[in-house]
Amino acid sequence: MALNVAKKLIKDHLVSGKMEKGEEIGLKVDQTLTQDATGTMVMLELEAMGLDYAKTEASAQYVDHNLIQVDSKNPDDHLFLESAAKKFGLYYSRPGNGVSHPVHMQRLAKPGKTLLGSDSHTCANGCMGMLAMGAGGIDVAMAITGEPIYIKMPEIFGVKLTGELPDWVSAKDVIFELLRRYDVKGGVGKIIEYYGPGLDNLSAMDRHVIANMGAELGATATVFPSDQEVKRFLKQQNRVDDWIELVADKDATYDKNDEINLSELEPLIAKPSSPGNVVPVREIAGTPIYQSYIGSSANPGYRDFAIAAETVKDKTIASGMSFDINPTSRQMLTSLVENFHIASLLQSGARLHQAGCNGCIGMGQAPASGRNSLRTTPRNFPGRSGTKEDSVYLSSPETAAASALTGKITDPRDLNMPYPKVKEPTKVNAKDDLLDQPLSHEEAKKVDLVKGPNIVSIPAMDKLPDELEIPVLLKVGDNISTDEILAGGARVLPYRSNLPEISKFTYEAVDPTYVKRAMDTKEKGGHAIVGGYNYGQGSSREHAALAPRYLGLRAVLVKDYARIHWQNLVNFGILPLTFVNEKDYDELDAGEVIKLTNLKDTFMKENKLTATLANQNKEIELAYSLSDRQKEIILQGGLINWIAEKNKASK
Amino acid sequence: MALNVAKKLIKDHLVSGKMEKGEEIGLKVDQTLTQDATGTMVMLELEAMGLDYAKTEASAQYVDHNLIQVDSKNPDDHLFLESAAKKFGLYYSRPGNGVSHPVHMQRLAKPGKTLLGSDSHTCANGCMGMLAMGAGGIDVAMAITGEPIYIKMPEIFGVKLTGELPDWVSAKDVIFELLRRYDVKGGVGKIIEYYGPGLDNLSAMDRHVIANMGAELGATATVFPSDQEVKRFLKQQNRVDDWIELVADKDATYDKNDEINLSELEPLIAKPSSPGNVVPVREIAGTPIYQSYIGSSANPGYRDFAIAAETVKDKTIASGMSFDINPTSRQMLTSLVENFHIASLLQSGARLHQAGCNGCIGMGQAPASGRNSLRTTPRNFPGRSGTKEDSVYLSSPETAAASALTGKITDPRDLNMPYPKVKEPTKVNAKDDLLDQPLSHEEAKKVDLVKGPNIVSIPAMDKLPDELEIPVLLKVGDNISTDEILAGGARVLPYRSNLPEISKFTYEAVDPTYVKRAMDTKEKGGHAIVGGYNYGQGSSREHAALAPRYLGLRAVLVKDYARIHWQNLVNFGILPLTFVNEKDYDELDAGEVIKLTNLKDTFMKENKLTATLANQNKEIELAYSLSDRQKEIILQGGLINWIAEKNKASK
Repeated sequence: MALNVAKKLIKDHLVSGKMEKGEEIGLKVDQTLTQDATGTMVMLELEAMGLDYAKTEASAQYVDHNLIQVDSKNPDDHLFLESAAKKFGLYYSRPGNGVSHPVHMQRLAKPGKTLLGSDSHTCANGCMGMLAMGAGGIDVAMAITGEPIYIKMPEIFGVKLTGELPDWVSAKDVIFELLRRYDVKGGVGKIIEYYGPGLDNLSAMDRHVIANMGAELGATATVFPSDQEVKRFLKQQNRVDDWIELVADKDATYDKNDEINLSELEPLIAKPSSPGNVVPVREIAGTPIYQSYIGSSANPGYRDFAIAAETVKDKTIASGMSFDINPTSRQMLTSLVENFHIASLLQSGARLHQAGCNGCIGMGQAPASGRNSLRTTPRNFPGRSGTKEDSVYLSSPETAAASALTGKITDPRDLNMPYPKVKEPTKVNAKDDLLDQPLSHEEAKKVDLVKGPNIVSIPAMDKLPDELEIPVLLKVGDNISTDEILAGGARVLPYRSNLPEISKFTYEAVDPTYVKRAMDTKEKGGHAIVGGYNYGQGSSREHAALAPRYLGLRAVLVKDYARIHWQNLVNFGILPLTFVNEKDYDELDAGEVIKLTNLKDTFMKENKLTATLANQNKEIELAYSLSDRQKEIILQGGLINWIAEKNKASK
Repeated sequence: MALNVAKKLIKDHLVSGKMEKGEEIGLKVDQTLTQDATGTMVMLELEAMGLDYAKTEASAQYVDHNLIQVDSKNPDDHLFLESAAKKFGLYYSRPGNGVSHPVHMQRLAKPGKTLLGSDSHTCANGCMGMLAMGAGGIDVAMAITGEPIYIKMPEIFGVKLTGELPDWVSAKDVIFELLRRYDVKGGVGKIIEYYGPGLDNLSAMDRHVIANMGAELGATATVFPSDQEVKRFLKQQNRVDDWIELVADKDATYDKNDEINLSELEPLIAKPSSPGNVVPVREIAGTPIYQSYIGSSANPGYRDFAIAAETVKDKTIASGMSFDINPTSRQMLTSLVENFHIASLLQSGARLHQAGCNGCIGMGQAPASGRNSLRTTPRNFPGRSGTKEDSVYLSSPETAAASALTGKITDPRDLNMPYPKVKEPTKVNAKDDLLDQPLSHEEAKKVDLVKGPNIVSIPAMDKLPDELEIPVLLKVGDNISTDEILAGGARVLPYRSNLPEISKFTYEAVDPTYVKRAMDTKEKGGHAIVGGYNYGQGSSREHAALAPRYLGLRAVLVKDYARIHWQNLVNFGILPLTFVNEKDYDELDAGEVIKLTNLKDTFMKENKLTATLANQNKEIELAYSLSDRQKEIILQGGLINWIAEKNKASK
């Protein structure tokens, strides 16, 4: 049977399940990627799991998010991550090396491999003929210990590219076109695979741009073939031996099809405050802006900066403009410096920032209030810039540079200048001595974790007892988000590596008394929470399950769950129950005591259990839709215990 | 009479007083400098004073401190400062242009002129044959309105330089030598003037290094002659027409003398946590460091970065090291880029940050806890780095670069490599279009101040009434610092442009009930505070007087004052009284009510007044040592009212 690239990758890594749409499949993970914002918890999870040494082919820990050091918390995290990378046999990319996705692509990505990363834009490395996916931290921790990743078999959505991009139109406009057509949920449950003659004029980094923002379509992954262009890129990186060809079979088909004629595209822009809010630039040209921003993993390439530099060269940006340049990797910044593009940008009035994620995730460069910001970043969700009620537009570097010159949103074709021709350097500074290599297993054994005062090991968590008699501490309504369960932001996130501290913010906005009351149940068997529909929607942050678990949460009883939070509850050993009769929700208030018995016997065998409401002396039916693997995880008290047991058994 | 350079500068600008040690002299101010951390309040003061257009020859508003934009407060301040610069006829240096002191030197400094700046390192421009002094914000505001600056006539301390610096020893080691000899109070009440044949081998930027850290000696100013080297520098800057020669008369003498033979110096280092804690590097060589930091106004020169770059070129810094490069001006960064020094630094493993003050004032780059940081910055006061219980060493760029390579404090001579020869570029990118020129008076009239939601005009303040009957709200002991009156730091400082908000933190740590009780007195005639010796020591921040004044403080009764806070009390119209009989302090408790009468009649005439303690029905004597000008200021309710009245009268 003729296979497309995505199916070849899946077939090569399939360890369980069938390649049929919607089936749970387990995939071997060859490589992993963690960044510092999510990585500290992953490393603490590896510690708790008792990992000896990474079982993947290559796992890398990057430091790119928390680069602003206003006190010792972030640098303490950096040193902790460095020590964890050494201890567990990971690559360590120090602060200043740049954003995980382009750095990984430059130094470690290999066609034909799978990559799992605790960052939603991990999909960017799909540009290299890889199956690259974002996941929760503990999923990546599991992968590092050698466990497969389990996903539902996605549809493969083939997008044929034809034609050639016109002047002043670039890769960003290609992904904007797809967002214009399908909006931010258009890729859910799908792998998007690009193919066709249009690929010939898209460099590996152009493809990175397109694959990166597959995340904004909600896609499981984005896949490009590994062709001669990928070979060229690896050659530039002194890694041509890592290249294999990986292209679709001649008669390969797709579950869904579309086509983009690149020649017909024009500069596009996403208006506030969704990446799916796409219109042609010309439609809103003239809108005043205060900030123009070049960088991020959505436009990380040499050409993305060079084209901006050539556009503003020997000119001066508009008065009052903040023209922020955020280099994406040390290697690229060095090349841009050596080829005088950085000098052109500086002389035009740019502010040059350190290599990293920076303002893309609200770490600096927040816009002034009431002003418009134009950015080449992937996301413009409300407030993500750091400024309340912000107004952020997303565009290509061409549009951002043109607009920096004029002070208003400008279709770059209206500059009436020749489209600069930018050539990638054939030789780059591709030395690896700043990407710290993993220690050997022997050397790694000697390493101790370096923990600053704010880095606290994950406390041990007990197994599910045979009986639970637990009070309902909180009853909430529909659509409770993980932000309500545990907020993000600058007040809470500094405690991301300190579970006891971050737990103190749990459900703070909903019920400030919850934390204290929950702590009181911790030693007495725990407690339950009752909710409505779509419980746990929003951000995937696993702290929203881990923190209440730390406070004694043993069971959640709701009408239904948002997918990722449901998975996180399982991962941390919390019973994710649903009402068989939804009207039981109405009669189950805070203060009620729930009694569950004979859990060890019946839980593995069944998909339902009967609970006694002690106060009402009444029984209700609760369901759970879990695989045997997931049931075992819950019985063990969560993934950390499960894998620790497994490691113990195998020794 | 033969004059030294300092006395020539004073004589040329003297508008009142006699040039006799300790006498109050008034000096005409030719130029001013404000930065963003202090400048927002200065601009609000100019607004409150009703300034029409700056009366100085050149005044510049720089943005270099608050460059980290995690929300809209800092960028809102930038836009406010830009609008204020336009409205008041100032130069505006946008974020990204760099640190005020080197940028001012490059673009605006003129030999023979006076410069007053609301930054303690304003003295750096003394390298240009200027009399350059730091001052409180409102003093600079006054200067912008055309008022003189009043200081006590300082001693002139002549330091003769002979010989030539050996390899691996540079300007920083010269000022360290003086700090080693005289410690951090050695310059108090003095202007330090450098002269002698040793100057021939010190570039203008080398002299900037030495003049800058005159602040750490406590000196009023540091003065260098304007010689051929200053001419060369101005020529490089396309400003040779701004040069005049200004050297000491042949037989000029000094009030105090010392000599440094440059040939005898060796690499020096200041240990934690005082710039005066100086020892030879070799004495503590081998001490492990985690961070090496190049930049700041204490080592701003092209050669300071180039020498570091040449030292680490084609090498890799120690594993785990954070090697932070903080460029000091756009112009210099561009030159360093064009001459491949930035590429050398990046390839060695450096983190390149935006041009500005950055970590020097705790805005990023805080070290990890429990680790040593080595910096070329001017100060290592405890906690200034942002990290509690930090351990910061200060050194030359040579020592910092050598130590980055080895991971421990290293005498650069021990690298056993030839001392790199660095030549300043003869041509630099000296275009001024990114330093916004002042608008013409006509154009300036059309400009409105742009105020973000956190920028609030200074509320009007009433005159001193003829009678005060005010309760003592607070009685404190000796050595109360301005940090205790109004803390600095990341929690409080974001409200620096919002007096009503920042006032809420007044005396927070001493008595959290003070603010509410003070507000209650605001409309009822105000209140008093009683203190011991050395009241108001520490930071010069004027908010420590302005905030309690806003809350209704009218009189302070203490044993004695720290000088700058005393001046700030006068500036904001608060009666700065001292006990004639210090034992009255013991009998005057919080709750007492103080009655002062006939203020209008007697205050101007006398230097003492009699207060009635209403509860005890007892009289006490209180003294005040104020010039007539200062008395008028207090009667008017502060400098803002005083100058507004004066402006009204002159119209």
